[in-house]
Amino acid sequence: MPTITLLTDFGLTDTYVGQMKGVIHTLAPDATVIDLTHDVPPQQIIAGAVMLDAAVDAFDADTIHLAVVDPGVGTPRRPIALRTSHGTYVGPDNGLFTAILDRHGATHAVALTNRHYHRDLITATFHGRDIFAPAAAHLARGVAWPDLGEPIDPASLVRLHLPQPQPHGHGLTLHVVWIDHFGNLITDLKRDALDTDARITLRNTTIPTIARTFGDVPPGEPVAYFGSTGRLEIAVRNGSAAARFTATPGTTIDLQPADPTSTP
Amino acid sequence: MPTITLLTDFGLTDTYVGQMKGVIHTLAPDATVIDLTHDVPPQQIIAGAVMLDAAVDAFDADTIHLAVVDPGVGTPRRPIALRTSHGTYVGPDNGLFTAILDRHGATHAVALTNRHYHRDLITATFHGRDIFAPAAAHLARGVAWPDLGEPIDPASLVRLHLPQPQPHGHGLTLHVVWIDHFGNLITDLKRDALDTDARITLRNTTIPTIARTFGDVPPGEPVAYFGSTGRLEIAVRNGSAAARFTATPGTTIDLQPADPTSTP
Amino acid sequence: MPTITLLTDFGLTDTYVGQMKGVIHTLAPDATVIDLTHDVPPQQIIAGAVMLDAAVDAFDADTIHLAVVDPGVGTPRRPIALRTSHGTYVGPDNGLFTAILDRHGATHAVALTNRHYHRDLITATFHGRDIFAPAAAHLARGVAWPDLGEPIDPASLVRLHLPQPQPHGHGLTLHVVWIDHFGNLITDLKRDALDTDARITLRNTTIPTIARTFGDVPPGEPVAYFGSTGRLEIAVRNGSAAARFTATPGTTIDLQPADPTSTP
Repeated sequence: MPTITLLTDFGLTDTYVGQMKGVIHTLAPDATVIDLTHDVPPQQIIAGAVMLDAAVDAFDADTIHLAVVDPGVGTPRRPIALRTSHGTYVGPDNGLFTAILDRHGATHAVALTNRHYHRDLITATFHGRDIFAPAAAHLARGVAWPDLGEPIDPASLVRLHLPQPQPHGHGLTLHVVWIDHFGNLITDLKRDALDTDARITLRNTTIPTIARTFGDVPPGEPVAYFGSTGRLEIAVRNGSAAARFTATPGTTIDLQPADPTSTP
Repeated sequence: MPTITLLTDFGLTDTYVGQMKGVIHTLAPDATVIDLTHDVPPQQIIAGAVMLDAAVDAFDADTIHLAVVDPGVGTPRRPIALRTSHGTYVGPDNGLFTAILDRHGATHAVALTNRHYHRDLITATFHGRDIFAPAAAHLARGVAWPDLGEPIDPASLVRLHLPQPQPHGHGLTLHVVWIDHFGNLITDLKRDALDTDARITLRNTTIPTIARTFGDVPPGEPVAYFGSTGRLEIAVRNGSAAARFTATPGTTIDLQPADPTSTP
Repeated sequence: MPTITLLTDFGLTDTYVGQMKGVIHTLAPDATVIDLTHDVPPQQIIAGAVMLDAAVDAFDADTIHLAVVDPGVGTPRRPIALRTSHGTYVGPDNGLFTAILDRHGATHAVALTNRHYHRDLITATFHGRDIFAPAAAHLARGVAWPDLGEPIDPASLVRLHLPQPQPHGHGLTLHVVWIDHFGNLITDLKRDALDTDARITLRNTTIPTIARTFGDVPPGEPVAYFGSTGRLEIAVRNGSAAARFTATPGTTIDLQPADPTSTP
């Protein structure tokens, strides 16, 4: 029985996530359900897309990832399931799967139009419980993919523009894409996009080199390293880079190659 | 093996919820445990009663719901279990099950007085771990209902006064009963209590009609609709109604029938 | 299959905990994973040590407790597993297991140096996912203890100084060690260290006796009692002692024996 993961912007203060789990467990009692996070910033699809992409490598390729950041719930945006070489994804067709599609493509996609696999009563505001949770549970139970609804062309799936490093002279302008629980700044620069050491400048502070981990600098010092999701991060050892640099998602960071004759 | 759900005001910062799960898992290793929420406002029994009622419809009728909002722990309030047509409930007899009793009644109730089914050491401040969690686990394992303690008359169970819409001329005065993670205002008006369209007024803003979902209005606009739990909600599309209207639980809302000759 | 518990300072906003669970579930699909908490104050090892110690008694002796509060990740501090009479523990050798070692000792300890039981790619910043989660999962599956790495002398494990009551005349100076979700102040005085009633003074307020539970005093009144983890707590009934006394971890509390001729 495949695992089902959940990523939403529902928070844990309400019972919305618990209700989704109740629906899944009723339909697929043997499925293991694992929370990725429910604290995607409310209705921020791009943040959800980046967070989902960062998490799925810790799971088997046959995992079902149920993701709901859905400001258009109840409007004509399509409820979908899609299959890739690294996981099956269920959620709204609003760009939430952009980073997954960019990395893995999709071999199949379906609009979840078969009412037989919805809850009996569908509300206009909670498709997470009424359409997406049942679809994920039925997929876990082995319901045949075409039974869930109309096939759709994977090329027609909505993709959004995700933050990307911008070339700038010999260097790059990076962007903070999210800020984690420790106040570390996670950027849009992936490890394989940089083949040289570099100098990082953020709000008049220059970090002269890329380190291996925050433990490589003294307490209180800023440090740059490629973090656990393969992205360049800026941290302050035993402190918060977000507080030190008053950074927010979107804050820009300058990167210059350590060897000025090379281009990252 | 029935599912056990948990709803408390314990928060997730401490290990209290983890300790309850340890006790349950030790006694009933095959039971699936699902969190409804642990963020009921501290010691707010009425909020807990409404949140529990909103969540249980996503679960099978044989689910065991363990709910602990218990400002009277260690005093003579009774620890109880009760059986209804839609679920078994375990927790303090302080009104936390009022909405469940109002909707489903109770066929059996028992005071959890049998020390054999408590933890060996009972603290005066954590019956969630020491009495309620073992009771739920033993019920999941199939311990006979009368073994848990003294039967009690369901009519003697504590019920509290829950917020209700108040008639007011041709209309109704509604109350905000809770505010969700998105800042949506959930009211005390249930769908089956209104058989007409209506005009909603909140702090000098009038919403002329009841919509289907927040996606039916432009971004930034207020909107009223019956939400995922069957209650009237006020939202701001892509925003927070709680912030816009500085609303809190208890804030009143005026509802007038769209056709002034009818009465809701 | 033993249970695995998780205690970290990772928070739940990011997907870090979800990633750890993905790694565990991939390697040990039948293991039950239970969260103790992920809200240890960031990088506060002593707080983590005390919170872990408070939680483990709710679990069987064969449980595997995976604990990560790890400001030195990626530096030479050792990744370890250790076995005690009450549970197996996996995490960094930085003092996080001090209270466990003080109470239970350790019969075995191992440095997790065998690369075969790590993830293929090890990052320098997330040993929780890349070393500790796989170790816990392999232990749950029954991998032989010596296979995980080099045996180490339990006496060499790092221990930190934990807060302890200080004798002071006939009485004791206590310290707040943490503040729970309700604003209750949990102190460093354990029940078996006091064999008399006592008078507690905190910021000019004297509580004349030790009660059984907060329900023993009128609403709004401060109260002292031995709480669910066996430590003396200061609470305000239906209120927050942290707010009333502007207390923080480290705040001192004076305790005097009720009978001034005895010494606690």
